[in-house]
Amino acid sequence: MSNIQNEKIEQAVGILRELNVDAWMLYARETSEINEPCWGIVAPAGVVWPSAVIITAKGERFAIVGKYDDAAFRASGLYTDVMAYTQGIGETLRSLLSELDPKSIGLNFSKSNTASDGLTYGMFLQLQDHLKQTPYAERLASADPIVSRLRGRKTATEEKLIRAAIVTTMKLFDEVTLEIKVGASERALYDFMQHRVTELELGYAWDMAGNPIVNSGPNSSVGHGPPISNLRVEPGHLVHMDFGIKQDEYCSDIQRMWYVRRPGETEAPASLRKACAAIAKTIQEGARALKPGVAGWQVDARAREVIVGEGYAEYQHAFGHQLGRTAHDGSTLLGPRWERYGETPFGSVERGQVYTLELGVITEAGMLALEEDVIVTATGCEFLEESQTELWLV
Amino acid sequence: MSNIQNEKIEQAVGILRELNVDAWMLYARETSEINEPCWGIVAPAGVVWPSAVIITAKGERFAIVGKYDDAAFRASGLYTDVMAYTQGIGETLRSLLSELDPKSIGLNFSKSNTASDGLTYGMFLQLQDHLKQTPYAERLASADPIVSRLRGRKTATEEKLIRAAIVTTMKLFDEVTLEIKVGASERALYDFMQHRVTELELGYAWDMAGNPIVNSGPNSSVGHGPPISNLRVEPGHLVHMDFGIKQDEYCSDIQRMWYVRRPGETEAPASLRKACAAIAKTIQEGARALKPGVAGWQVDARAREVIVGEGYAEYQHAFGHQLGRTAHDGSTLLGPRWERYGETPFGSVERGQVYTLELGVITEAGMLALEEDVIVTATGCEFLEESQTELWLV
Repeated sequence: MSNIQNEKIEQAVGILRELNVDAWMLYARETSEINEPCWGIVAPAGVVWPSAVIITAKGERFAIVGKYDDAAFRASGLYTDVMAYTQGIGETLRSLLSELDPKSIGLNFSKSNTASDGLTYGMFLQLQDHLKQTPYAERLASADPIVSRLRGRKTATEEKLIRAAIVTTMKLFDEVTLEIKVGASERALYDFMQHRVTELELGYAWDMAGNPIVNSGPNSSVGHGPPISNLRVEPGHLVHMDFGIKQDEYCSDIQRMWYVRRPGETEAPASLRKACAAIAKTIQEGARALKPGVAGWQVDARAREVIVGEGYAEYQHAFGHQLGRTAHDGSTLLGPRWERYGETPFGSVERGQVYTLELGVITEAGMLALEEDVIVTATGCEFLEESQTELWLV
Repeated sequence: MSNIQNEKIEQAVGILRELNVDAWMLYARETSEINEPCWGIVAPAGVVWPSAVIITAKGERFAIVGKYDDAAFRASGLYTDVMAYTQGIGETLRSLLSELDPKSIGLNFSKSNTASDGLTYGMFLQLQDHLKQTPYAERLASADPIVSRLRGRKTATEEKLIRAAIVTTMKLFDEVTLEIKVGASERALYDFMQHRVTELELGYAWDMAGNPIVNSGPNSSVGHGPPISNLRVEPGHLVHMDFGIKQDEYCSDIQRMWYVRRPGETEAPASLRKACAAIAKTIQEGARALKPGVAGWQVDARAREVIVGEGYAEYQHAFGHQLGRTAHDGSTLLGPRWERYGETPFGSVERGQVYTLELGVITEAGMLALEEDVIVTATGCEFLEESQTELWLV
């Protein structure tokens, strides 16, 4: 871990210089209760009391943490200086800031991007109190440009870990294929995957209550929740699974599709094969539009155009999101310019970012959706697993 | 779960009436990435896009969530109305608020209390944007008084679940007692407990990296991190463990102590027995001061007085914190009036709150600390497990 953290801190220093920002500050408490999405990128351990991590464009790294939390910070060797306090952080923080005298300080808040919005409003107010007699209260700005670049640009180690998480995920899809048969309930398939996650001591890329999402046939409930326990696989069903693990802190997020043949069928009905081909084609065409420099919404617009051209309805979500330490890794989104996506569809695609590409259509046999993971290269993107282009037959 | 959530929502309605606040609003997104500490109290599932839960003093319950998240909310039966949106939440939110026209709206932010600080600064700014043309932007206030009462006053179901988590915890302390022997490493004891947590499909009351905290002997590192892997139990060591599980969403948090006898010893050295007695006495005397109506800091002050009277140094933390859905359940703290504790030591003790009572001293044989869990009754408090009053001998 501490190896990746060192890589990411060095990368952050470069980004601060690139953006001409003097310092980046994380300010958080009780991180096991309210996760600060950037904490794990730069900090070796969670904290209980209000704590600050400050990284400067000069390459200095400071941590001010409560007593009892300092040992892990010191042991990590990641910091130029670790300061521990007992009664309150205010004085130490003011004193460090006046020594560094940064002209600009990036703070983790963002209207659009959860990944750079780890500062709570109460902690913001607390920081205002601490800094009210100083010039620094006026020098705070959103760190979203820093965080977006930092999370987006995967280091070699990060890329390796994401690839490894995907390999494990594909193995689990192979395993669950043997469990998909007439009479198996959605819940049983979900339980199978969750038991394997536990056995392998893996984590989840998103809330385990809806991971995997399992849909069998036309009466399944489409959404993020757990599967319906008494809904069973029947001949003629499409079985759909959306599944993502977290392995060594990095995630996968993939959707796969099976068709359960009726007696006598040797393949899926033509309408389903056509729908599957349209979705796979949309993913491939969308991927062709994904390259450094384009805006996120442009990739989404291309995918939307393809699926509509194939005669299907538009999907009601984004075509792709970044993937990394979480399934929804924040920042540039391959999504439409809708209110709820804020600024994220306007962000730029950069080399080293990892995206999902995903969409689905509703058919008479159930939900038909696919999702692939890709990494942006110098000139386009590379798929991180073998794409699904046809329904897997049961 | 949905049973407890219904109880807690009903309780929230009563608290809104008691405080004369018209509505309580939770506003969050990507709850699997940034936990909103109150989300699980009232909501049946996590959400991805910006979502609002509004509970009114009239007893109405509304949820506005993104498409794909609505099914779980509807299925729960907890809400008067579940509204799903696709492109943006703003219009639906404004329209619901103008219909309800609340004169005051509690929002989850607090400088002092993490448990009522689930609104991020970015989400606060987003909400300001949505409400800027309405009177409601001016009617927002901290929901800390609501959340403090709601989390603090355990319902009968919540009390039952906390008691059950404590029973499991005490069983695991019994089990680990058999593993504590000369040559066992701190890391092995930690691994033993974590494997049992996995086997029993339990969760952790706090960050699993430091749960349990294990300290053996005088060279152990005192703090929140994982144990030192090569530090082994030796004759003459105190072994200390701070451990808390989450079972059915409710937590325990208990510290226990062992003494590893040297050849020929039939009991622990007198100095250690004396220190253990002083700590146990401080907990019992502190408990005597814990009753409805007193301020949190008064209980801490009494405990501080006792331990100093016994001839030991003051502990450098709070004497006790509330326990519930997390180990640090927020609000009234049995702690000193130090900057970093903000307003929490000034809060009142109420019937139905569950507190830890904890302190320790450093001895020549290592860390000696105990922690008990208690529930506040009409006239005092009741211990939730058998208190440790003497060192357990190995």
